Amino acid sequence: MELAALQQLMADTYGAQDRERGVAATIAWLTEELGELAQAVRKGTPEEQLHELGDVLAWLASLAEQLGLSLEDAVARYANGCPKCGQIPCACG
Amino acid sequence: MELAALQQLMADTYGAQDRERGVAATIAWLTEELGELAQAVRKGTPEEQLHELGDVLAWLASLAEQLGLSLEDAVARYANGCPKCGQIPCACG
Repeated sequence: MELAALQQLMADTYGAQDRERGVAATIAWLTEELGELAQAVRKGTPEEQLHELGDVLAWLASLAEQLGLSLEDAVARYANGCPKCGQIPCACG
Repeated sequence: MELAALQQLMADTYGAQDRERGVAATIAWLTEELGELAQAVRKGTPEEQLHELGDVLAWLASLAEQLGLSLEDAVARYANGCPKCGQIPCACG
């Protein structure tokens, strides 16, 4: 799936209710999901880890949408390698 | 950018050093980046918010890679709408 398509899908599915809750609530939910991901990594199954990875990414897309920003644009600076050293693989050490 | 391409790019750029640090360190970095994103949302510029969105997504991709999981697979359950109610827009309320 394209990042832009994912962001649009999240906007279509959750945009109205997420906007109503507001950005601070979205940060709270995103943080909660990161906590669940951390727990799944520590003691969960691969299926649980996959589930939580999806939830974090979904909330991140929702946050980008509410901020009027694009996940696609956000990762563009990685497209040509490490933004600091310009290398693939990164040579920053 | 496709999610799978992003994950591969992060693996090519940072995979070796991230694997060496290990999953727990990746969770720590991801959490640090989420904190920076939260701060940028509260008092940063759109450029700073975009920067931090990219960093969170980059670390999430790195984590997925280290877990042997795919971000593409992770969001597949959202592809047909809300996983709980099956609707676009979500009707869970």
